Amino acid sequence: MTAELVFVGHIKTAYLTTAQCPGQARPENGTSRIVVDDEYASALDDLNVGDHIQVLYWFDQADRSVLKTVPKWSENNKERGVFSTRSPARPNPIALSTVEIFSIDENVMTVTAMDCIDGTPLLDIKPYINQLKR
Amino acid sequence: MTAELVFVGHIKTAYLTTAQCPGQARPENGTSRIVVDDEYASALDDLNVGDHIQVLYWFDQADRSVLKTVPKWSENNKERGVFSTRSPARPNPIALSTVEIFSIDENVMTVTAMDCIDGTPLLDIKPYINQLKR
Repeated sequence: MTAELVFVGHIKTAYLTTAQCPGQARPENGTSRIVVDDEYASALDDLNVGDHIQVLYWFDQADRSVLKTVPKWSENNKERGVFSTRSPARPNPIALSTVEIFSIDENVMTVTAMDCIDGTPLLDIKPYINQLKR
Repeated sequence: MTAELVFVGHIKTAYLTTAQCPGQARPENGTSRIVVDDEYASALDDLNVGDHIQVLYWFDQADRSVLKTVPKWSENNKERGVFSTRSPARPNPIALSTVEIFSIDENVMTVTAMDCIDGTPLLDIKPYINQLKR
């Protein structure tokens, strides 16, 4: 069974190829921008500078047939099940980063530098909650 | 633009209607089970009991046309942009919970009780990393 995703915007980064992308979103890499399409912009209301958000986006160049992979950080080159890695290659290449909002200008937010190529499709934004400490 | 998701399994919970579902995954509600379809089961290799994972799943009953909503926890009944809430209603109703693995039996994992109805489609599993403390 399947379902259809709609792209609600895109992510602007300094990376033009997947080889240039860092392994994770990292503050030391500067900033990225999240651009929400005009028709979805009102869904951003009530987000604020300083908030931490979980951003879901779509690794559209990923190989979706991969179930075993050697992660970038592997020290023994051993294959692992993709659900035990955060590799882009997986049946549903939904990417997930937790980032901080540095500025908001209408439908564009500046956030912690992300790990994807420029133009990567945006799927969703959620306010971050710590689900491990309650 | 759009992309197609494939369902890779489902989530077994005690909840038969969305009205019965709690607002978030919570340890005090017991456990749920994640069932991965046989064809994707090898992607689970290298996950272990005690690991924390981020589970992505699909709120297939959600209203995808909603951009403003009053969250369950609202005290003033004020509408908010859906990207500032974790409400199921949103353009791409991808649900996200961080849970602990309590047991693994081939393609079935017992985890922290989740917040969705029985049979909810599974999209992805990733190992949890704390992206706010590096």
